[in-house]
Amino acid sequence: MSLTLYWAPGSCALASHLLLERVGATYEAVRVDLGKGQQRTPEYLKLNPKGRVPALVTEHGILTETPAILQYVCQRFPAAGMAPLDDPWALAQFNSFNSYLCSTVHVAHAHRLRGSRWADEPAALEAMKKKVPQAVGDAFALIEQGMLAGPWVLGEAKSACDFYLFTMSSWMEGDGVDPKGFPRILGHRERMAADPVVAKVVAIESGKA
Amino acid sequence: MSLTLYWAPGSCALASHLLLERVGATYEAVRVDLGKGQQRTPEYLKLNPKGRVPALVTEHGILTETPAILQYVCQRFPAAGMAPLDDPWALAQFNSFNSYLCSTVHVAHAHRLRGSRWADEPAALEAMKKKVPQAVGDAFALIEQGMLAGPWVLGEAKSACDFYLFTMSSWMEGDGVDPKGFPRILGHRERMAADPVVAKVVAIESGKA
Repeated sequence: MSLTLYWAPGSCALASHLLLERVGATYEAVRVDLGKGQQRTPEYLKLNPKGRVPALVTEHGILTETPAILQYVCQRFPAAGMAPLDDPWALAQFNSFNSYLCSTVHVAHAHRLRGSRWADEPAALEAMKKKVPQAVGDAFALIEQGMLAGPWVLGEAKSACDFYLFTMSSWMEGDGVDPKGFPRILGHRERMAADPVVAKVVAIESGKA
Repeated sequence: MSLTLYWAPGSCALASHLLLERVGATYEAVRVDLGKGQQRTPEYLKLNPKGRVPALVTEHGILTETPAILQYVCQRFPAAGMAPLDDPWALAQFNSFNSYLCSTVHVAHAHRLRGSRWADEPAALEAMKKKVPQAVGDAFALIEQGMLAGPWVLGEAKSACDFYLFTMSSWMEGDGVDPKGFPRILGHRERMAADPVVAKVVAIESGKA
C-alpha cells in the first residue's frame, strides 16, 4: 500500500506533497526535472500520458489532477480530517474551491510561462504575459472577497484546500501581483508558512532539507 | 429542498442540467442570456460573484464549478448511481476525468471566444483562435487514447462523466476539430445523443421543447 508522488519544484504538485505529509502517508516523492524535459520522456509519458505533474501512483494505478488527488488522499486517510467527508454540502464547497484554483487561478498563472499551450506567435505570448498580473489578481480578488471563510478556507477547520491555496498564493509575486492588496490571503499564507508540515516540505522542495 | 440551476445555451452548464434531469431531481432551470450580459448584472453577481454559469442554488446556498456540482448532485441522489460513491479509487478517477475536462479541455476551447480573459491585443486574440483546433484536438486525443474505458467513460456503468464529456464533445466542430479523427469519442457522443434524457434537455436548451 505504498504511494509515489511525482512532483516538480515550483509546480502545483506542492499541494499534494503537503497533504501527503500532513496525513502521515508512507510515500516516495520523485522529483521530475521540468527544465530538462523529463516530463516528456517516453518513460514518464508511459506513466502519465499528460506529461505533467503531479501524478500519484498507487496500488490501483495512476491518479492525476490536483483536485482529484486531494479528495482521494483525504478519503484514504480519513483520520487526518483534511476534508469534510461526511457532509456532502461542505465537501461540495471543498471541491468547488479546489476546482476554481485548478481551472481559473492556475490557468491565469500558466499564461506567463506556458502560453505556448494556447498560441504560437511570440507577440501573442508577450500579450499573455502582460495580462497575467490582472488575470491572476482578478482571480485572487474573488477569493479575498468571498471564498476564504477564515482563518482557514472552509472556516475553523484546516483542510486540503489550505495546502492548495498556499501553493497558488506562493506564486503571487512571481506573477506580478502584490499580496499586500490581498490581506486575508496574505494572512492565510503566513499562517500556513508557520505550519511545521509546510516548512518541512517547502525545505525539501527547495533543496534546503 | 428545491434546486435552481442557472444555465446558458451552449455553455458547460449543460452537463449539470443533464445530470439533474437524469437523477430525477425537482429543479428549476433559469436561463441566463450571456449575449445580453445578464451574468454581469448586479442581481446575478450578487447570486454568483464569478459571473458565470452554471450556478446551482440549494437550501444551503450556492454551488459553482461543474466538477463540484456533478459530485454533489450524485451524492444528493445516490439511488441514481451516477458516481461510484462507495469506491474512493473509482471516485478519484471520476473526479480526475471531470477536472481534466474543466481545466484543460474547456480552457483550450475558451481561447476561441473568451481570449480576452488572458490578453487584450486583437492580434493575440486572433493567435489564440488560430491555435484552438490544435489545443482542443490535443486535449481530446488524450481522452481518445486512454481516458474513455468504453462504452462509457468509466466502463460499463454510465456516470456523470458521460454527461460532461458529451457537453464538451458537442463543441468539437465549432472549435475546428473533426470528430471523425476521434472515433471513440464520436461513438460516445452518438450513444449519448440517443439517451432520452439527453434528447429532452438538448431540445429544451435549443428552444425546441
